[in-house]
Amino acid sequence: MNASSWSAGRPLRVALLGCGVVGSEVARLMTRDAEELAQRVGAPLELVGIAVRRLGRERDLDVPADLFTTDAAGLVSRGDIDVVIEVIGGIEPARELILSALDNGASVVTANKALLAEDGATLFEAAEKAERDLYFEAAVAGAIPIVRPLRESLAGDSVERVLGIVNGTTNFILDAMTTNGTGFSEALDEAQRLGYAEADPTADIEGFDAAAKAAILSGLAFHTRMTLGDVHREGITEVSAADIRSASEMGCVVKLLAICEKRDTPDGPAVSARVHPAMIPLSHPLASVRGAYNAVFVESESAGQLMFYGPGAGGAPTASAVLGDVVSVARNRRNDVFGPGESTHAQLEVLDIGRARTRYHVAIDVDDRPGVLAAVAHAFAEFDVSIRTVRQEGSGLDAQLVIVTHEADDAALSATVAALREMDMVRDVSSVMRVEGGF
Amino acid sequence: MNASSWSAGRPLRVALLGCGVVGSEVARLMTRDAEELAQRVGAPLELVGIAVRRLGRERDLDVPADLFTTDAAGLVSRGDIDVVIEVIGGIEPARELILSALDNGASVVTANKALLAEDGATLFEAAEKAERDLYFEAAVAGAIPIVRPLRESLAGDSVERVLGIVNGTTNFILDAMTTNGTGFSEALDEAQRLGYAEADPTADIEGFDAAAKAAILSGLAFHTRMTLGDVHREGITEVSAADIRSASEMGCVVKLLAICEKRDTPDGPAVSARVHPAMIPLSHPLASVRGAYNAVFVESESAGQLMFYGPGAGGAPTASAVLGDVVSVARNRRNDVFGPGESTHAQLEVLDIGRARTRYHVAIDVDDRPGVLAAVAHAFAEFDVSIRTVRQEGSGLDAQLVIVTHEADDAALSATVAALREMDMVRDVSSVMRVEGGF
Repeated sequence: MNASSWSAGRPLRVALLGCGVVGSEVARLMTRDAEELAQRVGAPLELVGIAVRRLGRERDLDVPADLFTTDAAGLVSRGDIDVVIEVIGGIEPARELILSALDNGASVVTANKALLAEDGATLFEAAEKAERDLYFEAAVAGAIPIVRPLRESLAGDSVERVLGIVNGTTNFILDAMTTNGTGFSEALDEAQRLGYAEADPTADIEGFDAAAKAAILSGLAFHTRMTLGDVHREGITEVSAADIRSASEMGCVVKLLAICEKRDTPDGPAVSARVHPAMIPLSHPLASVRGAYNAVFVESESAGQLMFYGPGAGGAPTASAVLGDVVSVARNRRNDVFGPGESTHAQLEVLDIGRARTRYHVAIDVDDRPGVLAAVAHAFAEFDVSIRTVRQEGSGLDAQLVIVTHEADDAALSATVAALREMDMVRDVSSVMRVEGGF
Repeated sequence: MNASSWSAGRPLRVALLGCGVVGSEVARLMTRDAEELAQRVGAPLELVGIAVRRLGRERDLDVPADLFTTDAAGLVSRGDIDVVIEVIGGIEPARELILSALDNGASVVTANKALLAEDGATLFEAAEKAERDLYFEAAVAGAIPIVRPLRESLAGDSVERVLGIVNGTTNFILDAMTTNGTGFSEALDEAQRLGYAEADPTADIEGFDAAAKAAILSGLAFHTRMTLGDVHREGITEVSAADIRSASEMGCVVKLLAICEKRDTPDGPAVSARVHPAMIPLSHPLASVRGAYNAVFVESESAGQLMFYGPGAGGAPTASAVLGDVVSVARNRRNDVFGPGESTHAQLEVLDIGRARTRYHVAIDVDDRPGVLAAVAHAFAEFDVSIRTVRQEGSGLDAQLVIVTHEADDAALSATVAALREMDMVRDVSSVMRVEGGF
């Protein structure tokens, strides 16, 4: 089939998989804004089927009841679908359905970060083989246009680092801890009460959600295939009110960051991706990202520092990102072309966390006696870790050393902390947190 | 020519018009990153000519000397060029060269905001007729990807408002006035000394540059053709240290904003675009945009509030935006397709400033006697302008009323201020400024 076989006005057939919060909003907007979307695509979009788990549930949608089906596999394989929108989430059956859709000639728009982070390669290869699009703007940071800028706007630049606040739940919790001085559990309770955290908050608070997005962002930024398993992951459950106070005393706030970096090694450029709580200075643009908002900060060679900010989740924002992709993909189908696919030409070495360059903030409860600072400083020196600032606080049983290091391999920093914990003069290492954002 | 006549590896021929700060950076990166760019495009990019005003000037570029030519018209019309990059600026000869390039089968990447705002229609129509791309990411807010998100990512959404800090010079000056408490001329001197303002700063400080960008942003956001003449424009030369202090007392900062809005009128939706200094609350994400940085804040129906932040000017950032477009356009040429063109299907009515909805902050020096507040309040009521807050300050000769209104038609607010100036009890209307950003 080539471009000339398309009549200008032929409707493009769209199938929707999933009709939850995001899916129903997509269906609602496609119906309400049909004329506007047709103008933007150059042809009408016709919603020809909506796959749901169960029929008969009340849905406040102005679409014919016979569009609903429980046979998702049948819908994507009927062969006359131009665009499949996958908003089911999870690994299966989403993967099988997307592969079947591509195999049957449809382009695919998905919001499925978990699947992309686990097995994006299979999907992208299938899309390339089928000569169809696989677009996924909604998979990272909700409505914030970040996938397209990385894939296209910065295509002539060299991205060096991506720092992202890409999980609204954890940002809400850390923000509440900062504002109210509460501990983690109290802030989590509040987030759950207000609907910002799920009943089972594991995927958010343990950093799985952010890590999936970090894998996707790294792939885009560095033209190197990364999976969830390549991302070092620490959640926020260990962040204490004392950590938040320590950060504040340094003029910092604590954020759960997704950090994707390129660094030069003796063997050439390599990349790393990690998700963990970190202190960033109040002057950093990411510090002012409040509540459940998301933001992605990009440092690139020519463009310099860019930030993309907006709502990271929610039905309407996610639907906006999905529909933006649907318009692009439908335009491409209409012209019988496809947009940029997966870009993995660099295939840089992926470093584990031990080889990432980080800086630590360490608060150490020590015996208040002469020689403590010298002994502690010696422990850092043993691992070639250079100290940037030391603050001595309190006295007697409250004596504390607060140390911020210079940049070093994370393995050396981590080994230093382990050694400190073994020292007689050290009663407790009461706060350990990485420091990011050019403090 | 159709897709099949392209061999996969045929180089794409690129001509560069202009070799100043941006152009030389584009040439440098195209040479240095040739291999990387070829990977991203799917074919090598071959720089076949660089049009300059004068030959023989020392250029620190690793390109063959015979690429340079003073015959720009001959270069774009030779007929074998795939992509023309226009970074000359100004109206002519840029317009003639772009039209000739399109007419001779090349796609065009331009950073020329003045030309797009004055006569974009002619260029877009020529591009459509030629079935070639006209891309212009670098024309608005330098390296910040904002054109592409508006053209593509938000294509399935409805943009309601765009608030932009799109001129780095004026943002630097206002920031310096805020930080140092200096007046306008002193801050302008500093900006010129540091290279943030040109010797003739008119285009920046009188808002012409921002207004051109506002016209382009409005067109993209509202699918309605707008020109520079449709944009109400006020510069920052009248902003006083007292205005800045007033803003600060209200928890606000003064920014030069480009404001593009859609509003419902009795005759249906309509749009307006304006550039003027305004107070915005410190809590607004735009308030923290410091120095010469730019940011564009977008409010859309589904996506909600988005912000795009980054360097608004400079050789390397602008070159990054240009090269991102070059990669897209070259990919399209290779596939013999073209991307989304001008979108003017909505063609909404364009309102003049009088019909834009705004809010005023007005500081009035008054006689300190009974009945003054009643008389002033009466003047607002006469024009149906509702007062939101009144603060009375000082006494005797220093007596001042500081009033913030609710939203009203700008014409009514402006007429109210004119009436106040005529009142006997009013000694002076010492500060008038619009308030934006949801204060």
